[in-house]
Amino acid sequence: MTAVLDVPSGAPARIGTPEPGDPRLARLSLNQRTTAHWSLREAVDGAVAAGLPAIGLWREPVAEVGVDTARRWVDDAGLRVSSLCRGGFFTASDPAARATAHEDNLRAIDEAAALGTRALVLVPGGLPAGDKDLTGARARAAEAIAALVPHAVERGVTLGIEPMNPIYAADRGVVSTLAQALEIAESFAPHEVGVIADTFHLWWEPGVHARIAAAGERILSYQICDWITPLPADTLLARGMMGDGHVDFPAFTKAVAASGYTGDVEVEIFHADVWAAPGDQVLATLARRYVELVEPYL
Amino acid sequence: MTAVLDVPSGAPARIGTPEPGDPRLARLSLNQRTTAHWSLREAVDGAVAAGLPAIGLWREPVAEVGVDTARRWVDDAGLRVSSLCRGGFFTASDPAARATAHEDNLRAIDEAAALGTRALVLVPGGLPAGDKDLTGARARAAEAIAALVPHAVERGVTLGIEPMNPIYAADRGVVSTLAQALEIAESFAPHEVGVIADTFHLWWEPGVHARIAAAGERILSYQICDWITPLPADTLLARGMMGDGHVDFPAFTKAVAASGYTGDVEVEIFHADVWAAPGDQVLATLARRYVELVEPYL
Repeated sequence: MTAVLDVPSGAPARIGTPEPGDPRLARLSLNQRTTAHWSLREAVDGAVAAGLPAIGLWREPVAEVGVDTARRWVDDAGLRVSSLCRGGFFTASDPAARATAHEDNLRAIDEAAALGTRALVLVPGGLPAGDKDLTGARARAAEAIAALVPHAVERGVTLGIEPMNPIYAADRGVVSTLAQALEIAESFAPHEVGVIADTFHLWWEPGVHARIAAAGERILSYQICDWITPLPADTLLARGMMGDGHVDFPAFTKAVAASGYTGDVEVEIFHADVWAAPGDQVLATLARRYVELVEPYL
Repeated sequence: MTAVLDVPSGAPARIGTPEPGDPRLARLSLNQRTTAHWSLREAVDGAVAAGLPAIGLWREPVAEVGVDTARRWVDDAGLRVSSLCRGGFFTASDPAARATAHEDNLRAIDEAAALGTRALVLVPGGLPAGDKDLTGARARAAEAIAALVPHAVERGVTLGIEPMNPIYAADRGVVSTLAQALEIAESFAPHEVGVIADTFHLWWEPGVHARIAAAGERILSYQICDWITPLPADTLLARGMMGDGHVDFPAFTKAVAASGYTGDVEVEIFHADVWAAPGDQVLATLARRYVELVEPYL
């Protein structure tokens, strides 16, 4: 059950919506997809109105207005760009398709640099149609990342591998655990390749708290949303509001803090009810949930 | 897409339905849930008619006729009982509920022994309502297994931990990987505690083929069905017919064979289309798919 406007059941007391300027919001970032119906302009204005200091951008809405305009808007609003979503999708078996993906990822690196963010989120992609060789697809993802490193270094951008919940292993992300993402990343320097720690994707992984804590500066971005049950019919929309599901945010957040991570915390929710709610109400709720469940443990 | 009556696309040639007596069927077992609408009597008769030498039983339909009757039916039909599903569900935080679960699992062990099978499948259970301490739930599952070992040994039954796809980590099975299941099992002798290797649950796990091959006699049962996309709205019914999804059955089966496993191969499908189809047609299809995708690699 998503209850967008309520504090989670079991909360010790109702927490008021933090006001702009509240120091507890100093690391909270709105990932654009959380308010998917908002244009970039609306998202920038909404983040500012709610007192959030940072925003996680997506390439598609940025492309609608152009990178230069997007950069000017976020700069003028005084927002940090916590990450750019997303590169990746480079598991094709056809070499021509892989070359096209490589070119597109070079552009994504350029866009991240132009937007002033260090973190480019990479979603590896799934199995090619009819292909059941998961090991091969994973090897191609690792090769594709390696091929991007020189250009990323040149632009001052760190490639962030996003391990994805195994629910998406077939059709979206063949890197399925933090352990696997770190194994790929560790062939490179931390400023070259890092990992994205996303609660939805990793909450279930045995030993994940210790693994995050030990990952140090490899943790490039911390993204949060909840694992809810029953899963919605469209599993792409299964990422719920913090507190509505099963994730232990205090424990996960303590692990992220133990890694030494000092960056922003991006709220990235994919959920039909959240997307249908007015954006300002969504931001008020996520700020309350963040202040209750995450911020005290950072 | 589930195409219950067709061979998978990309199959080199249409394979005819194997006849009873075909030596390629010598290790094929019908898990009762695959033909969920069949009574135990119908399932026994259906397995015999299709030439299958073994059946995987579930406790509920066995209880409907009584263990003694069930045993007589399978014996008279000349079937092996490849496993009994299922014990487990022992992650409750309330000690009284855990004690009740323990008692129920003792009875499940007795039933497995009475039915003449060595393999009792254990599904650990999910998080208690409102409880987000996954590490704690996992620890309780391991403790509950340990408490069952003496009785299982006395009855000649091996406890089979079934690691479950992380899609079920919150609500059904907190043991999420083969690595984790093996870690629990390895506190005991192989005849005390083993693991269930199920393609649906494990196909995505990094390194799983090597891990299976190295697991040796810990592999207590091999269960097969496919991971299909898009996932059905009810994710409990996401286990498709072999060949309809993304699992690499030849590679997975070679790993099971490399472990030294010589037992039966249970087809356990949970899918609305399969359940709606006539049982004899389902058995014909699964026998063809097995002969094409699994048996040559055993």
